[in-house]
Amino acid sequence: MTASSSSIRVAVLGASGYSGGELLRLLSAHPAAEVVAVGAGERAGAAVREVHPHLEGVVEDMTFEELGPGVAGRCDVAFLALPHGTSSHIGPDLLEAGARVIDLAGDFRLPAEDYPNWYGFDHAAPAWLDKAVYGLPELFRDQIRGSALVANPGCFATAAALALAPLARAALFEGNVVVDAKTGVSGAGARPTATVHYAHTEGSIRPYRVGTHQHTPEIERVLARAGAKDTTVTFVPHLVPAVRGVLVTCYVPRTDAAACARALDEAYAGEPFARVLPEGTMPDSKHVQGSNVCEIGVGGDERTGTAVVVAALDNLVKGAAGQAIQNMNILFDLDEGLALPTTGLYP
Amino acid sequence: MTASSSSIRVAVLGASGYSGGELLRLLSAHPAAEVVAVGAGERAGAAVREVHPHLEGVVEDMTFEELGPGVAGRCDVAFLALPHGTSSHIGPDLLEAGARVIDLAGDFRLPAEDYPNWYGFDHAAPAWLDKAVYGLPELFRDQIRGSALVANPGCFATAAALALAPLARAALFEGNVVVDAKTGVSGAGARPTATVHYAHTEGSIRPYRVGTHQHTPEIERVLARAGAKDTTVTFVPHLVPAVRGVLVTCYVPRTDAAACARALDEAYAGEPFARVLPEGTMPDSKHVQGSNVCEIGVGGDERTGTAVVVAALDNLVKGAAGQAIQNMNILFDLDEGLALPTTGLYP
Amino acid sequence: MTASSSSIRVAVLGASGYSGGELLRLLSAHPAAEVVAVGAGERAGAAVREVHPHLEGVVEDMTFEELGPGVAGRCDVAFLALPHGTSSHIGPDLLEAGARVIDLAGDFRLPAEDYPNWYGFDHAAPAWLDKAVYGLPELFRDQIRGSALVANPGCFATAAALALAPLARAALFEGNVVVDAKTGVSGAGARPTATVHYAHTEGSIRPYRVGTHQHTPEIERVLARAGAKDTTVTFVPHLVPAVRGVLVTCYVPRTDAAACARALDEAYAGEPFARVLPEGTMPDSKHVQGSNVCEIGVGGDERTGTAVVVAALDNLVKGAAGQAIQNMNILFDLDEGLALPTTGLYP
Amino acid sequence: MTASSSSIRVAVLGASGYSGGELLRLLSAHPAAEVVAVGAGERAGAAVREVHPHLEGVVEDMTFEELGPGVAGRCDVAFLALPHGTSSHIGPDLLEAGARVIDLAGDFRLPAEDYPNWYGFDHAAPAWLDKAVYGLPELFRDQIRGSALVANPGCFATAAALALAPLARAALFEGNVVVDAKTGVSGAGARPTATVHYAHTEGSIRPYRVGTHQHTPEIERVLARAGAKDTTVTFVPHLVPAVRGVLVTCYVPRTDAAACARALDEAYAGEPFARVLPEGTMPDSKHVQGSNVCEIGVGGDERTGTAVVVAALDNLVKGAAGQAIQNMNILFDLDEGLALPTTGLYP
Repeated sequence: MTASSSSIRVAVLGASGYSGGELLRLLSAHPAAEVVAVGAGERAGAAVREVHPHLEGVVEDMTFEELGPGVAGRCDVAFLALPHGTSSHIGPDLLEAGARVIDLAGDFRLPAEDYPNWYGFDHAAPAWLDKAVYGLPELFRDQIRGSALVANPGCFATAAALALAPLARAALFEGNVVVDAKTGVSGAGARPTATVHYAHTEGSIRPYRVGTHQHTPEIERVLARAGAKDTTVTFVPHLVPAVRGVLVTCYVPRTDAAACARALDEAYAGEPFARVLPEGTMPDSKHVQGSNVCEIGVGGDERTGTAVVVAALDNLVKGAAGQAIQNMNILFDLDEGLALPTTGLYP
Repeated sequence: MTASSSSIRVAVLGASGYSGGELLRLLSAHPAAEVVAVGAGERAGAAVREVHPHLEGVVEDMTFEELGPGVAGRCDVAFLALPHGTSSHIGPDLLEAGARVIDLAGDFRLPAEDYPNWYGFDHAAPAWLDKAVYGLPELFRDQIRGSALVANPGCFATAAALALAPLARAALFEGNVVVDAKTGVSGAGARPTATVHYAHTEGSIRPYRVGTHQHTPEIERVLARAGAKDTTVTFVPHLVPAVRGVLVTCYVPRTDAAACARALDEAYAGEPFARVLPEGTMPDSKHVQGSNVCEIGVGGDERTGTAVVVAALDNLVKGAAGQAIQNMNILFDLDEGLALPTTGLYP
Repeated sequence: MTASSSSIRVAVLGASGYSGGELLRLLSAHPAAEVVAVGAGERAGAAVREVHPHLEGVVEDMTFEELGPGVAGRCDVAFLALPHGTSSHIGPDLLEAGARVIDLAGDFRLPAEDYPNWYGFDHAAPAWLDKAVYGLPELFRDQIRGSALVANPGCFATAAALALAPLARAALFEGNVVVDAKTGVSGAGARPTATVHYAHTEGSIRPYRVGTHQHTPEIERVLARAGAKDTTVTFVPHLVPAVRGVLVTCYVPRTDAAACARALDEAYAGEPFARVLPEGTMPDSKHVQGSNVCEIGVGGDERTGTAVVVAALDNLVKGAAGQAIQNMNILFDLDEGLALPTTGLYP
Repeated sequence: MTASSSSIRVAVLGASGYSGGELLRLLSAHPAAEVVAVGAGERAGAAVREVHPHLEGVVEDMTFEELGPGVAGRCDVAFLALPHGTSSHIGPDLLEAGARVIDLAGDFRLPAEDYPNWYGFDHAAPAWLDKAVYGLPELFRDQIRGSALVANPGCFATAAALALAPLARAALFEGNVVVDAKTGVSGAGARPTATVHYAHTEGSIRPYRVGTHQHTPEIERVLARAGAKDTTVTFVPHLVPAVRGVLVTCYVPRTDAAACARALDEAYAGEPFARVLPEGTMPDSKHVQGSNVCEIGVGGDERTGTAVVVAALDNLVKGAAGQAIQNMNILFDLDEGLALPTTGLYP
């Protein structure tokens, strides 16, 4: 993170959480970006190395600040790794002060009318929702280029949208799609709660937020934009004993698995971060641990006419910080893959 | 395991595997049964304590034998914890020699014509298939009583059948049901393979046998017997980083979740080993670790008209050895719950 | 837990924690004891099943109370599963009101002068320290019988004392002994903290409280009582990714491993809950998961004249609740092994 | 891994194991090295991506070969990630054919007379033992530079040697040192065995090879070279439920912890891959997961005059493949840190 006159100046707000730590880790290897400010209200004044001990050697002298809109004067782009409902308050000020904003929360992903129901709050800046682009490069790259406000997608939504959007474009299904998701606990954040206690998670498999998870309308919206008609999604996430890793299993009714596989192959040919596996191979969340790749496999259940499309990614990388940097690279006309690993840490 | 003139004499064939070890552990606390012979061809001559070190103090002097049909002369009942395809060879001889047989493999669960496709072998003793009862006591208790040959259900099938059969009886759904299952690795058996290497399973979430798992027709058969019309099941199991524990998430289309919950409540009132959770509560596989209970919860996704019925159990207990002992208790007119824990080991 | 006129009436104070839950689980299978009151100040009024979901079917109608000394009028014995420093306040009142007390905290294990340094508080009832017996039955059974106040040993101290006391009695070593301990996280309690977050513990191996852990003087005291001269202990515990399980590795200098093994064999012949493994076999904490057994193995490093004595136990059973029930059985002249499993849950 | 006229041409023998996979992963990001041949006798003909699925995108067209000494004609340096006892057969031929050799096995770490006892074989090429340098750069950098044959240290030996050698140099201790090590299972290799079965390792803490592990004389030899007099090591490794990570706890008798800390601080000032933590901080193996750093902390037990020096590293990186690349960088006069991460993947 040596300063350079041509480096993009980056601020990370909410840098004490897992997505924030992952942003700092990945950005430390970025040849054209420099982290100039790290915000974390609750930890203001603390050394970054205390909160992120694995970043020793990278963040020697960094200290958390309590950052407000004024940071726009010191940075070219601000990553908002803040709790849902906070970004929509500070984001507009940053934008008006001239910074570009990449929001890792859900504040700019849905229409205003969806927030009370799915997020439990009224949106603070509905006028900005039309200006936000949905930052899923493999589907909306052209719209991201040149925009000022990027809504970085949710981890489950990234996986499900990459798995299903090409099928929607090709009109390969209609009706309700079951999306059954499994995730490690890092998605629940760094705050200690009974839910994430090691003793409760080890050996435990359990669903949560059945039918009410906020990524549901996010997935439906992407599918609608891709051309799906009257498509709904039944979405149930499950917590399993892992730290990183999301795997979604999508049950596409009344369709042809081979046609689905072809549509995916065509959609992602040449994409470095969306990888369709050879026939007969299924994703394993561990294969992409630490990488920015989403792996996708297709299986068929001919007896019941159901295609099973499975996608796996690292929720902190392609599902959060990695994809956010991918979006930054696009915004600033850099090589899209800068600082983004394509191989995971295995075993 | 002190001998008693009135004890049921038990033989366990295939006792060196996980289900076999669990049978020995649970039977060691059974007041009316005594293990008189433990078979394990590959380990014949070895002390049981070498293979099952946690059974020290219970199996002091037991040694594995290579058991054939002759063991029928020494036992009242034989548990067959053998590989699929083996029970159907030795089972008939044991039966003809007068022993009752409880088969933990899949050899007596399906019609003969299903074996080539789902199990990959031609059935060796099709005449016995009609005489076998399906050992799911909560659904078929009356048929089990007095029978000589019990097909102990598969772990996934137990969970899915308990979750769905009462709905089928009440005609609450039709059409295809998605059953998405998650399991720990003990279901894969004790044999070391790349699949169950710790380094590959820790942190890994992955589907397997998409659309081809042999429990699929087993579930469909139970549902048909319960009155479901033209019902099919799309079944996909997933391996997650756990040892014990199965959780199945059943997506029941075009139905009413409240009616489903009522049907389950009524079906299992008074059942000690099928527990319907209060509204708003969902099962956690860890809550039933080590117990013989299957916990069931119902969630609704009104937007899409889908009921989500989730069932969790310990695959080695209610999903295998515990249920087998439950069947033995029924066969011999004992208290059905003898030696079967209703509480799990937690955390 | 059916009431019986002859049952021992038991109160559990601090029943919302892990040791408390384990007491309830084990006592539910006790034929001669009945839990009549469960205390948990913070959770008073809550149903026990909410806090301990695995105890469904056992604690149907139980509710946490805020229990004071008055509970002595309703019980014969009170288990105190309270935070360190609390038992010494309420314990004396319970004793004076006629209840026997088994304290699972550290409040009655050391001389009064050790508390400020090792526990950080001045002892509230030093007069009772002389009346307390140290509840390690395999070493001090005769003193436990007939006493009113039992200091239930710490988990690490139980393992280390069982491993080393017979060697001290036989004068097999002198000088400083290194005791390196490894433990799962359940010993840290149910309270969610950053330390026990799943994401921090999975894959993590780390020491804590180097040289300052409060079990150090507890181990030294047992060894002194066993006859060790000028023996000190360097004790370092480590947290590893497990829920249950303690394993201590004791490095005994300038001694003969074979003589150590003989001393252990003799000391524990006939003991159901202290098991010395055959030569060449070493303990595995998982083999005793869920059981009340402490397994001990001896290895020799002849080159350096060091005997390596290793002991493993389940910290919630032999290291806490199980041993407490073992002490209760002794206090009330019952079969010492009632309700205490000798086999673990494996795998 | 684009070819370049100035790239170092690298062959990896034994590339199908975990160390081999880690070499391929790290080398794929090396700007001055190119993997030209990957050997794996058992898997010859198979695609690398089949064995190392996480390396998709990096090893598109690579296939395992059965490599013999002839590969020396195609490479500048050969990494030998072969089983112990194999490198000493093929290494000399490679050397005589002009390639430099970095051996990740134990074949060139000890004097010839130690092999029968500690490794169980007679050394095949004792004449080469004097020419081998011990590849621990922080201690022996000058000797590595310009050599042709590097014995890459063992994972435990790296940690223990980095923790203790500066103390030996400063004459801060004498006599026997207890080194208690804990490790994840990846060190046991990729071959499926009962030991590494997930069901046996989850929840399990267990010692192995008590007093007989082959890293013992390796540690003693480094300490002797550092000036320790009559120093012996009692070494006991333990397997804990983790994949990557080694943590060694060294109990240094009759010394002053503050002096030990000063000696370590001085020894590693400026070293990017040996990091002494601030006073009061102890290593956590997870903090260095995926990085090439060894973290070291010092604690004191003044009561017993014992210093507790703890070191943690990732056994596949600083304990194997990363250190091997560090040695390659030195051999070829490159920046020593090329392609070696200093930050880990966390959480």
